[in-house]
Amino acid sequence: MAQAHTIATLGSHSALQILKGAKDEGFPTLLITLKNRLDFYLQFPFIDECLGIDDYAQFSSLETQLLQKNSILIPHGSFVAYLGMEGNKHLKVPYFGNKEVLDWEASRDLQLQWMQASSVNIPRIFIAGEPIDRPVIVKLFGAAGGEGYFVAHDQQEFDLKLTKFSGQKYIVQEYLVGVTMYPHFFYSPLTKSLELLSVDRRYETNADALGRISANIDPSFVVVGNIPLVIRESLLPEAFSMAKRIIAASQKLIDPQGLYGPFCLETIVTPDQKFHIMEISCRIVAGTNAFINGSPYSYLLYDQPMSTGRRIAREIKLAIKQNKLDLILN
Amino acid sequence: MAQAHTIATLGSHSALQILKGAKDEGFPTLLITLKNRLDFYLQFPFIDECLGIDDYAQFSSLETQLLQKNSILIPHGSFVAYLGMEGNKHLKVPYFGNKEVLDWEASRDLQLQWMQASSVNIPRIFIAGEPIDRPVIVKLFGAAGGEGYFVAHDQQEFDLKLTKFSGQKYIVQEYLVGVTMYPHFFYSPLTKSLELLSVDRRYETNADALGRISANIDPSFVVVGNIPLVIRESLLPEAFSMAKRIIAASQKLIDPQGLYGPFCLETIVTPDQKFHIMEISCRIVAGTNAFINGSPYSYLLYDQPMSTGRRIAREIKLAIKQNKLDLILN
Amino acid sequence: MAQAHTIATLGSHSALQILKGAKDEGFPTLLITLKNRLDFYLQFPFIDECLGIDDYAQFSSLETQLLQKNSILIPHGSFVAYLGMEGNKHLKVPYFGNKEVLDWEASRDLQLQWMQASSVNIPRIFIAGEPIDRPVIVKLFGAAGGEGYFVAHDQQEFDLKLTKFSGQKYIVQEYLVGVTMYPHFFYSPLTKSLELLSVDRRYETNADALGRISANIDPSFVVVGNIPLVIRESLLPEAFSMAKRIIAASQKLIDPQGLYGPFCLETIVTPDQKFHIMEISCRIVAGTNAFINGSPYSYLLYDQPMSTGRRIAREIKLAIKQNKLDLILN
Repeated sequence: MAQAHTIATLGSHSALQILKGAKDEGFPTLLITLKNRLDFYLQFPFIDECLGIDDYAQFSSLETQLLQKNSILIPHGSFVAYLGMEGNKHLKVPYFGNKEVLDWEASRDLQLQWMQASSVNIPRIFIAGEPIDRPVIVKLFGAAGGEGYFVAHDQQEFDLKLTKFSGQKYIVQEYLVGVTMYPHFFYSPLTKSLELLSVDRRYETNADALGRISANIDPSFVVVGNIPLVIRESLLPEAFSMAKRIIAASQKLIDPQGLYGPFCLETIVTPDQKFHIMEISCRIVAGTNAFINGSPYSYLLYDQPMSTGRRIAREIKLAIKQNKLDLILN
Repeated sequence: MAQAHTIATLGSHSALQILKGAKDEGFPTLLITLKNRLDFYLQFPFIDECLGIDDYAQFSSLETQLLQKNSILIPHGSFVAYLGMEGNKHLKVPYFGNKEVLDWEASRDLQLQWMQASSVNIPRIFIAGEPIDRPVIVKLFGAAGGEGYFVAHDQQEFDLKLTKFSGQKYIVQEYLVGVTMYPHFFYSPLTKSLELLSVDRRYETNADALGRISANIDPSFVVVGNIPLVIRESLLPEAFSMAKRIIAASQKLIDPQGLYGPFCLETIVTPDQKFHIMEISCRIVAGTNAFINGSPYSYLLYDQPMSTGRRIAREIKLAIKQNKLDLILN
Repeated sequence: MAQAHTIATLGSHSALQILKGAKDEGFPTLLITLKNRLDFYLQFPFIDECLGIDDYAQFSSLETQLLQKNSILIPHGSFVAYLGMEGNKHLKVPYFGNKEVLDWEASRDLQLQWMQASSVNIPRIFIAGEPIDRPVIVKLFGAAGGEGYFVAHDQQEFDLKLTKFSGQKYIVQEYLVGVTMYPHFFYSPLTKSLELLSVDRRYETNADALGRISANIDPSFVVVGNIPLVIRESLLPEAFSMAKRIIAASQKLIDPQGLYGPFCLETIVTPDQKFHIMEISCRIVAGTNAFINGSPYSYLLYDQPMSTGRRIAREIKLAIKQNKLDLILN
């Protein structure tokens, strides 16, 4: 029965993980990708079919074909970048996850409202014109993959650097000095359970290169990789509790069922052992790629190598079995 | 026969790893935890029973119940913090490991004596009043998890910062500039063999955040996570040799059998490729949590995902089979 | 049939991985090592035999014995250091890989020619006497394991530090500020396919310790460990493409078949998300030791824990089956 559906995604971000997981759960797999990446993706044995396109504007022309194959699209971090917000919302092909969450993920104001409703710690946000009395990080709205950020230590540096963002929307956050941690969760609307599947820290260029030489260079935060991590066990109950509060708040704020499926809390942990959430990623994040062959945490729950990608496919399989696909598709 | 014993531990540190490992080796499992963590631990399928307590002073009231279940307690890094040194020593429930080691782990003077008897490199220790002629790290006695440390670059900074430790016992060590490495060993008193099971480096806040921006901030060393690591193979023979000397010295110094079971050498490796031992952790360390699903090193010895937690359970199983539980329990 | 050959290597670098992989593929295994490391290596159950020598000059005296056992030698990063370039070239025992590549790996001039023929980005090379107008890294010819490097920020520091390299050959490269990434590839001359097996970053002392305290200390780059990593998926197609161009260029430049088997591109990734290749390692690198029990990438291709060491043994097994050992041995 599972064979009746094809798991499909776009060729980037975590596509390999998603389709490997789908194949491990017994699904046919399909990839849509730019033609210049076809050769790369075609080498992987778990990808049954690759459709090449010249640009993402062509995506809609494939929808009939995807519907014929009874496809389910698994969105990842590059979906909005590639198909646009409206492109995502107007997909005709069934889509794993709640599309209403897209607006809440994209808007820093809505994220702020959501995080406040969840009673989690967040870095101090500076409103326009407020004096910069401590180090801050300034982020362009819609910045992805860590590009479009800068750090300013004081008002003068802030004013100087802001000129390059002129005319664009941005947010000014306190720069918290603490280590970054990205726990990867999965919330199942079928079993109502929350799972921690893995944790990573991002590997950012050049920020993660600066400490190695004494040089007075501005950091950049472009994410080019991920490093596996585990969290001190005494911090795990709070990590779970935060994630549960985020889910509970989403069920009140976001129709019809709030956030479900994979998500990540982008946190900084300060020396007082407190988590501070910078952002909620409302879908599979690239850090899960460090755990395609399983993680210390997913092994607590599954005696097989369970990645987030595979967990998505397992949820779809369960929904098919229970005849509840409408609960997880949009 | 293994079913006759229950593996029990306290809910923190590496409890998930310990009980998952126990379950994988076929033991019933039991967790004692603060009531506010019950929900968190109850979600894991490999924990057969959770007993909630209001505070750790209540622990002794559970001992009869634990004895009835034929429990074996597995201590970890939070046992002394939670039950106190005397609480640990006076446990009536059988306890994995040599309790005589507790004093040697807790006292920096005894550790020093042990390390010197093992002929290992250690950072230079400054005696009271000795001039601070190089960077030093100052550690409170009994500091755990990296809290209660400070760095001073010279005498002036040392004098200034020491005021916050006034009246407390502390140790002053040379701050060695080198990378940290925490190899995790297991010594079996049954087979007399030493195994390297995994290696990590700690992820410390804010020390591991400072290099990313140029800011003149005092480092703190609070451990909030761990990152997996492998060691250059040409350094492994010396890592083993150090660990063997530590075990051999313990058998002379510590009654009746010295150190056995899991332990970790907390080292710094300097550019001349020499290990320097800062501390001996005489039980399972949290860094092993990065390897709940196995490690590159444990895979050399076991074709299954062998964590330190599981290795402990395997040792107990072997002792039961050989009728030698008295050799490993206290 | 596979049993007819013994897989052999020298005791260092990635010997454990190579022999564990060989054993997993069904081969008898043999290690040649300095006598003071015999105890260390003898403890591993997958090493069938250990031959101790007093120094590497004795190696040639073992060749008859190795030939009698129908051995295949697997070279690793310590082969040239231990046996010398000529020692490697004149081995009588069959050797996995193309020995003609040795000269191209050892000479920075030939590497440069090869990288240029592959159209990959490389750091700017300064010719003798050229003014030092930006931070540079200066590397001794033949420097291994990250020793014999220094960083200079300007002409004055360069002139001062160069005195310690006087009379030796060295190369002056632009110091690119970006994160390091070491993807591990395998090219099969039997199937003509290129595989990405894993990725690491090196753990270097003291460079990876400097960011944790504010101290004005010269970095050193001695590699003492490795940390697992995954690469942003959108960078993977270029990583593969670079590796393919390296292989294709080698087939034109290096007789008779160019580079095959395991190799690593030592790269720096800058904030514009571009790879810059510092060096081509033409054999198994120590970073693969982080993946003795498999990697996220090798799991995409193999549903077993496939290390680079095991992949080599698998290639030999395939060559035996296809009666094509001459294609992969030298």
